[in-house]
Amino acid sequence: MSPEPPAATSDKADVPSNRRVLCLTDGAVRELAETDLDEIDRIRKTRNALVWLDITDPSADDLALLDREFEIHPLAMEDLRKRRQRPKVDVYGDQSVIVTYEAVPFRDGPRAFELAEHHLFAGDRYVVSVHWAESAMIESLRTRFRQRAATIGASAGWLVYTLLDAVTDGYFPLLDQMAEYIDDLEERIVGARGGPSALREALVLKRELLELRRVLGPMRDVANAMLRRENDLIEVEALPYFQDLYDHLVRVLDQVDLYRDLVASTLEANLAVTSNSLNAIMKRLTAFTVLLMVPTLIAGIYGMNFRFMPELGQQWGYPAVLLIMAVSVGMLVIFFRRKGWF
Amino acid sequence: MSPEPPAATSDKADVPSNRRVLCLTDGAVRELAETDLDEIDRIRKTRNALVWLDITDPSADDLALLDREFEIHPLAMEDLRKRRQRPKVDVYGDQSVIVTYEAVPFRDGPRAFELAEHHLFAGDRYVVSVHWAESAMIESLRTRFRQRAATIGASAGWLVYTLLDAVTDGYFPLLDQMAEYIDDLEERIVGARGGPSALREALVLKRELLELRRVLGPMRDVANAMLRRENDLIEVEALPYFQDLYDHLVRVLDQVDLYRDLVASTLEANLAVTSNSLNAIMKRLTAFTVLLMVPTLIAGIYGMNFRFMPELGQQWGYPAVLLIMAVSVGMLVIFFRRKGWF
Amino acid sequence: MSPEPPAATSDKADVPSNRRVLCLTDGAVRELAETDLDEIDRIRKTRNALVWLDITDPSADDLALLDREFEIHPLAMEDLRKRRQRPKVDVYGDQSVIVTYEAVPFRDGPRAFELAEHHLFAGDRYVVSVHWAESAMIESLRTRFRQRAATIGASAGWLVYTLLDAVTDGYFPLLDQMAEYIDDLEERIVGARGGPSALREALVLKRELLELRRVLGPMRDVANAMLRRENDLIEVEALPYFQDLYDHLVRVLDQVDLYRDLVASTLEANLAVTSNSLNAIMKRLTAFTVLLMVPTLIAGIYGMNFRFMPELGQQWGYPAVLLIMAVSVGMLVIFFRRKGWF
Amino acid sequence: MSPEPPAATSDKADVPSNRRVLCLTDGAVRELAETDLDEIDRIRKTRNALVWLDITDPSADDLALLDREFEIHPLAMEDLRKRRQRPKVDVYGDQSVIVTYEAVPFRDGPRAFELAEHHLFAGDRYVVSVHWAESAMIESLRTRFRQRAATIGASAGWLVYTLLDAVTDGYFPLLDQMAEYIDDLEERIVGARGGPSALREALVLKRELLELRRVLGPMRDVANAMLRRENDLIEVEALPYFQDLYDHLVRVLDQVDLYRDLVASTLEANLAVTSNSLNAIMKRLTAFTVLLMVPTLIAGIYGMNFRFMPELGQQWGYPAVLLIMAVSVGMLVIFFRRKGWF
Amino acid sequence: MSPEPPAATSDKADVPSNRRVLCLTDGAVRELAETDLDEIDRIRKTRNALVWLDITDPSADDLALLDREFEIHPLAMEDLRKRRQRPKVDVYGDQSVIVTYEAVPFRDGPRAFELAEHHLFAGDRYVVSVHWAESAMIESLRTRFRQRAATIGASAGWLVYTLLDAVTDGYFPLLDQMAEYIDDLEERIVGARGGPSALREALVLKRELLELRRVLGPMRDVANAMLRRENDLIEVEALPYFQDLYDHLVRVLDQVDLYRDLVASTLEANLAVTSNSLNAIMKRLTAFTVLLMVPTLIAGIYGMNFRFMPELGQQWGYPAVLLIMAVSVGMLVIFFRRKGWF
Repeated sequence: MSPEPPAATSDKADVPSNRRVLCLTDGAVRELAETDLDEIDRIRKTRNALVWLDITDPSADDLALLDREFEIHPLAMEDLRKRRQRPKVDVYGDQSVIVTYEAVPFRDGPRAFELAEHHLFAGDRYVVSVHWAESAMIESLRTRFRQRAATIGASAGWLVYTLLDAVTDGYFPLLDQMAEYIDDLEERIVGARGGPSALREALVLKRELLELRRVLGPMRDVANAMLRRENDLIEVEALPYFQDLYDHLVRVLDQVDLYRDLVASTLEANLAVTSNSLNAIMKRLTAFTVLLMVPTLIAGIYGMNFRFMPELGQQWGYPAVLLIMAVSVGMLVIFFRRKGWF
Repeated sequence: MSPEPPAATSDKADVPSNRRVLCLTDGAVRELAETDLDEIDRIRKTRNALVWLDITDPSADDLALLDREFEIHPLAMEDLRKRRQRPKVDVYGDQSVIVTYEAVPFRDGPRAFELAEHHLFAGDRYVVSVHWAESAMIESLRTRFRQRAATIGASAGWLVYTLLDAVTDGYFPLLDQMAEYIDDLEERIVGARGGPSALREALVLKRELLELRRVLGPMRDVANAMLRRENDLIEVEALPYFQDLYDHLVRVLDQVDLYRDLVASTLEANLAVTSNSLNAIMKRLTAFTVLLMVPTLIAGIYGMNFRFMPELGQQWGYPAVLLIMAVSVGMLVIFFRRKGWF
Repeated sequence: MSPEPPAATSDKADVPSNRRVLCLTDGAVRELAETDLDEIDRIRKTRNALVWLDITDPSADDLALLDREFEIHPLAMEDLRKRRQRPKVDVYGDQSVIVTYEAVPFRDGPRAFELAEHHLFAGDRYVVSVHWAESAMIESLRTRFRQRAATIGASAGWLVYTLLDAVTDGYFPLLDQMAEYIDDLEERIVGARGGPSALREALVLKRELLELRRVLGPMRDVANAMLRRENDLIEVEALPYFQDLYDHLVRVLDQVDLYRDLVASTLEANLAVTSNSLNAIMKRLTAFTVLLMVPTLIAGIYGMNFRFMPELGQQWGYPAVLLIMAVSVGMLVIFFRRKGWF
Repeated sequence: MSPEPPAATSDKADVPSNRRVLCLTDGAVRELAETDLDEIDRIRKTRNALVWLDITDPSADDLALLDREFEIHPLAMEDLRKRRQRPKVDVYGDQSVIVTYEAVPFRDGPRAFELAEHHLFAGDRYVVSVHWAESAMIESLRTRFRQRAATIGASAGWLVYTLLDAVTDGYFPLLDQMAEYIDDLEERIVGARGGPSALREALVLKRELLELRRVLGPMRDVANAMLRRENDLIEVEALPYFQDLYDHLVRVLDQVDLYRDLVASTLEANLAVTSNSLNAIMKRLTAFTVLLMVPTLIAGIYGMNFRFMPELGQQWGYPAVLLIMAVSVGMLVIFFRRKGWF
Repeated sequence: MSPEPPAATSDKADVPSNRRVLCLTDGAVRELAETDLDEIDRIRKTRNALVWLDITDPSADDLALLDREFEIHPLAMEDLRKRRQRPKVDVYGDQSVIVTYEAVPFRDGPRAFELAEHHLFAGDRYVVSVHWAESAMIESLRTRFRQRAATIGASAGWLVYTLLDAVTDGYFPLLDQMAEYIDDLEERIVGARGGPSALREALVLKRELLELRRVLGPMRDVANAMLRRENDLIEVEALPYFQDLYDHLVRVLDQVDLYRDLVASTLEANLAVTSNSLNAIMKRLTAFTVLLMVPTLIAGIYGMNFRFMPELGQQWGYPAVLLIMAVSVGMLVIFFRRKGWF
């Protein structure tokens, strides 16, 4: 998002910072220069080769290149242009188009994360990944791919798995962080130390969880569709890996549902605590009112102007009344203390 | 709805404003005059021809014409007469009857949109669209069809897709607008700036979302039924397009469900905020009561008529008591301030 | 329910008012006299004939007749005797037994309608309808059948469809009426004009909707079972009609669900409005308390008996204090007005 | 539960009160004596015979007998020993094991009923029923079986049906009773005559309905499993009867769900009524406060000690002030009455 | 968790405390020493042998051993390393990997139990169980296995069943304990003896139930997957046992759901009780205010300084006024008592 990332992240000056091509041929990985982009086609025809084109924040130019080189279906092109798609896997001929969302943690502000959209186009011996913000996750995958292509896999299906797996794994630290946050929030609310901001925080959490759910449900369905091998991108040996991916997404969804229930509890608790505190306030109001009105009444009585009020003429009258006031207040204090109204 | 739309929207004076016929023959589109309506039948028999008859607010006459020309099933005729149908697709012989709803944004009043019913009758080489209010969407599709028939498609199935796609796309700006509105409402409520109208606004939103859900759920089912090719209107090549339509409707429904959850949160927040504000009021009432009753009690004490009250005779008595009152009130103010009750 | 309907609705004096037989033979409809009841059997054997026996509030005698003439399964007989069955369709051999509920609008009392149970027995060339209260709907169907047998249909399946369709159509005016009622109720509650009766009305509505749901869900399942042609009562040509019936029941159910959500909103709104009004009351209490206690304190101060209170001896003392009181009250009124506490 | 039932219910002194055997051979039913228990085996081998062994509160001895005579699967034995099983039907070889719950109405205490567990073991020509409390239902079935074996049925499948049907029918009076109770409770709560016990009663009802649901759901699944003929206990002719059983259980569940919704409404209503009553109390508090503080203020003013207060010296001063106090209180009473605060 | 369990639980000094191997060969069970670990492989090849390796809190070394000896799939290894998996059964070739959770009761602290993760690896003639805390359950199973191998079973499938059955049975006492706790909590809350800690306790309960549900749902799915024999670990004869396991898990889940509903009721009840108690407090405040202000007003009246107040000069004036005060307070007390405001 800042304007200078290329210097920091790209290591080949003549390739525009937002297009990066890695080629795997005969077990060796190399990065293509801008001028070699037309080589992609040639490499794709090589046996056992694999091309990974990654585009950050695509320009109209980039989209045209994609369309030309990879024969992308008009509907997929339109999705790419419009963005904000649901996670899904579409199969057009021998090309699979996958939309998925990465959770990018936020450092400042009340929100914990932002969802970054990724479109993947995978076909015979190529994978194209498109996203709109620099992605540390993609960067680290590129490094790993460059160093140990074998561990990432030499087929498009394996590369897609690796990408989806990295995306999914990115949700776990986020969820752990949320769990701690919810625990802390609940603790504060139940301990009546929530304050007015607790409500706002709970609502932000609830909304974030709703958004996670909205994205993760379809992502699980994508993994499931992969498992049912609705496209021939996935080799039989890769199935346990996609099963694992599916399991992880189910686990993430389970967590999200648990947290939604916990946040709902928290909001309920907030209401209960507010009600309790209202009761406490009203008890105190009642106690204060009685405490102050009793001596006021006594003072009022001795403020009456009757001619024949024997106490008024006594030397001990004034101190005695003050004593009576003090005693009655003292007894009321003890009474209300016992009832727990103070 | 206003009485003068024909002058503005129709460009053929001799066709009654509510019936408009577009014919595609040999790649050329032309608009038929009223007198040529009996030509429809002839054109429908031409190879590669396509007739699109659009009727706004049909009269009994129009319905009779429809019945005669397109052999509409009695049940479909009855639905047309009664209106307020659920979105659905019925297949009678080789004719598909589709009911769908367009979201027409409202400019004034508390409601954001109105749902306008559309009935489509599609068969071999013809599509009939019936609606009850002028529709800007239909108008723009007619323009596009007249200019670039190819882009809208030369078959009844494609034309139906185009119509349904336009209807679906109409929901997105509406939803974006609602999202902003909900955010704003929540912000106002949580910031205790909601006021009594916030409740009313949230209820209107909730009702609108319920109505959207009621219409969009069946519309998704229509798209799904199309996908499963339960009628032979749809060519195999068109399937990805109907898949895309289905995906869009699922996305719209997801949004609607998300917004319903958010509005529900908002109503919950409203309750919580009201409770909080009640607590604040009661704290203030308690504080005020105590603040005013303490000096009143002191004044009451020195209003007693005892003969022997040494302070009363002192020169400094009155100012001293005023001072005591001021000090006690001051200390109470500080005390309640610290507790946050002011 | 009133004792004299027979005179008004039956036109054949010698048939007991609760049994009415219509026969269709060779396109002509005639009403059988009591003495001809044994003719039913003969007519049923005629080709293209159709017998419709309608029984209101059956006596033990009527049940015995039914059992004898139409060989009703013991379980169906037991259901008939016990009543309060769920809507269902049971198939015993070549006889279909359908239980359905008609919504009979109520004129007085808080409830809007009553559900009247109907049992239908349909088999080869006969339909028997049994109900317990006079039914205007059945009466109008009999009239229509007598006048235009063809429009009601010459087969048992068509007659069953016509009966079920009439039952279903009876729910729509009821729902429109409820919609208006709910709108009105919500308007009153949100406008804080609900009063204590609003809660009672909302609860009655909720209960009515729960009861409707309980009856309409199984009725939809009946229509669906018919559609899947689980009995051979229904000809293939009739299927679109049963599809239409099914669609209507789904629409009714959709409405009922929508109304349930709206009534739930209304109850929520009621709570919110009550909370808001409590806040308003407490603000007023606080304001009144402060308004009255401030001058009381001032009066208390000048009621003290100190010998040296210079103001007391001044001519202008009394009016000045009254003025101070008035000014302080006035300022407090302005202050609370500005805060909106009055 | 009381210790003396055997004398009242058993009619054969030499059979221990908790084991009762009825045998049907050649259409005649007879009760076996204790000594004939080993005859069971012989009878079971007779054609057309049927043995029904009923055991109340089985001892270890009884269980051993069961195990020996009827070759019960170890898992079924364990369930028998542990009790508190879910309603279910298990098939072990040619033996079906059914667990079901009878609703035994309670006469005293806040709870309406108790659920009594029954285990049925049915196989070729025998049924064993085991329960832990004396069951009036079983007793009446035994009487009916003794008198009219044919009506209960001569096969194990029919006997099982009769038992399950009797169990199911036992829920209906209970539900009718609950319906009345809920109506009464709602009426009391909405009429603000609920008192603090209403909450407790509603919670007991809710819990009872939850328990009913937990037992009835699986019972319905048992009936459904029977219908799908997953064991060969059931003859084809008996299927309508099991369908009827299934329908009844669905009806019972529908009722239970309806009542749960009604009890939930009742609790909601309770909250609303409490809120309303709080508003009424606060209005009264405000009215009382104002009513009493206004004359107190007036009295305070004329209690001030200014030397020059002309009214004080007037003969009419005192009665005039009393009149002013009375008039202002009277006007305030009228004012608050009009606002409905009294 | 405490550092000294080995001394107490292991009976073979030369085996590291966290690895224990039991071998069944020719019907005899013996425990292998550390040095014999490489014998496992040999034993596994014997006909009718069975090896059970149990590892507590595995070190990197243990994991390497596992990987080497039992050829564990990389994904299963990763799950083992990462822990916190969902309960599941994965099949890799002829090895089944099962994740399940044991409920370990807690003695101190507010929480009732802790969930301990178990990973089981079962294949041809071996079972490996891995867990992270000492497990009394595993210990008792080992004892039983050593003593009566036959009762635990001589095949891997039976051993897995025994382990899963023991895990499941561990939930029942926990649930009984929770039921009592919930009853007690509800009783305290409804009886208004809940206090502020009741809310906290209810929230802890709710969270525990949510966690149980999250673990038990997938455990039920595991049992179901076993039943559908998706792996060939399970012999046909073992199916009723897995059916039983499945039934038990469904029962546990039913209980958990019931308890969740009860805890939700409890929280609702808490709110209702708080509201009721607020009403009671406000009634008391109103009563006290009126009780004290009436005599204060009377005293105020006789504190006025009018010259002509005939009562003031009377001997009986003062006692009469005191009597009037007492009588008016007495009547108010009776009035408020009758209304139940005290």
